Amino acid sequence: MTYCIGLRLKDGLVMLSDTRTNAGLDNIATFSKMYVFEQPGDRMISLMTSGNLGVSQAVLSLLNDGVEDPATGDLQTLYSVPSMFRAAQLVSEAVRRVFAMHGELMQAQGVTYDIGVMLGGQIRDRAMRLYQIYSAGNFIEATEDTPFFQLGEHKYGKPILDRAVTYDIPLIEAVKLALISMDSTLRSNLSVGLPLDLLVYRRDALRSGIRRRITEDDAYFRHLREFWSGALREACQRLPSPDWVRE
Amino acid sequence: MTYCIGLRLKDGLVMLSDTRTNAGLDNIATFSKMYVFEQPGDRMISLMTSGNLGVSQAVLSLLNDGVEDPATGDLQTLYSVPSMFRAAQLVSEAVRRVFAMHGELMQAQGVTYDIGVMLGGQIRDRAMRLYQIYSAGNFIEATEDTPFFQLGEHKYGKPILDRAVTYDIPLIEAVKLALISMDSTLRSNLSVGLPLDLLVYRRDALRSGIRRRITEDDAYFRHLREFWSGALREACQRLPSPDWVRE
Repeated sequence: MTYCIGLRLKDGLVMLSDTRTNAGLDNIATFSKMYVFEQPGDRMISLMTSGNLGVSQAVLSLLNDGVEDPATGDLQTLYSVPSMFRAAQLVSEAVRRVFAMHGELMQAQGVTYDIGVMLGGQIRDRAMRLYQIYSAGNFIEATEDTPFFQLGEHKYGKPILDRAVTYDIPLIEAVKLALISMDSTLRSNLSVGLPLDLLVYRRDALRSGIRRRITEDDAYFRHLREFWSGALREACQRLPSPDWVRE
Repeated sequence: MTYCIGLRLKDGLVMLSDTRTNAGLDNIATFSKMYVFEQPGDRMISLMTSGNLGVSQAVLSLLNDGVEDPATGDLQTLYSVPSMFRAAQLVSEAVRRVFAMHGELMQAQGVTYDIGVMLGGQIRDRAMRLYQIYSAGNFIEATEDTPFFQLGEHKYGKPILDRAVTYDIPLIEAVKLALISMDSTLRSNLSVGLPLDLLVYRRDALRSGIRRRITEDDAYFRHLREFWSGALREACQRLPSPDWVRE
């Protein structure tokens, strides 16, 4: 399983992914699920994937090699597309081509063709965007009303985001909330695991800001985990008791 | 869908259930999922159900009418069993009998035979226990290590319980935590809905303590919902920023 969070906020993007892959509980491994296509001053595009690892690696290989434009025969990559919308279309096309290559036989063998992609970034003076692309190649875009997406094991970490994320929160608050949401998921589900990959992009910077791998040894993440459990217990104690308790 | 929480703690039991049933998103209704079998001074047994409503109502009808003991021919009910273990066996037997009546035809029509039961209580001088009973009639019991069970849509509300519940917390803290866990689920999933049914049982009381229906208008629950969201936002602000932010 996987857990990835992407937030598109007034000030920029925050993207966070785990690194656990598993084929059954007894076969787990570590693979980065975050890929960055960056040319400072021109574009910063980041991509996170969930689902079948064979499918997502095939999609990434296609994106790296370039996808042929049927009209012109030119190879397009995430370094050549002129806008984030075209970037999303390129990923969509790659997802469909891999389905054409592998989908039928996978399904014949009872394996679901399953990939989820989150794609965020900005190109030159175009708008900063965040997309979620599904297995069929269709996609949706984050808005001010719904400024975040999740991939994979999303339920454990959703309440904190639902309660606290708005379009206007500072990037650093969003980093903390994403890490708390991830921690809630790590604690409750074994199929999501450390280390984490974090990327923070400030709007119009056209280069990634923070890029960090967070391991078991990360002092800040360790502090956050303890702090948050303590803060919740303390908040619960501060919450007044109901007046009907003595009924 | 459904969300129910049961906690078996040093001081007693807390049981909380929602009341939403749905057959598709466009067909929702309100049904209590909590049933109390109480004879003050002798026993207090409470039961919560999830899954197919037809199945859980059939199980409840059987438990109310009595299940025949194959050896003696006597009808046994939750008012006649001598221990909570025997109560769990009685529920298990009822689940199996309803499967014998309806299971085959349901499965032939592509409907899963799906019922979950949580059963908590105490009888006279016997131990206070909490069981979770599955569709096949097999069951497990809560322990000091794992003092709570959940039925239904359990993921949204699990992190707060994982972080804050231990066997030793006071009952009133457990009530607050159960309500917070329920609120997290209500916010993030439409298939779980108000009103709620709450029962609190103090160990050795042999009668229910608090029994309360919590509606939209419940002033305390409204306060709790606002307080908790505010407390989380505030805790997030108090959490120091990582020192690698300025890297």
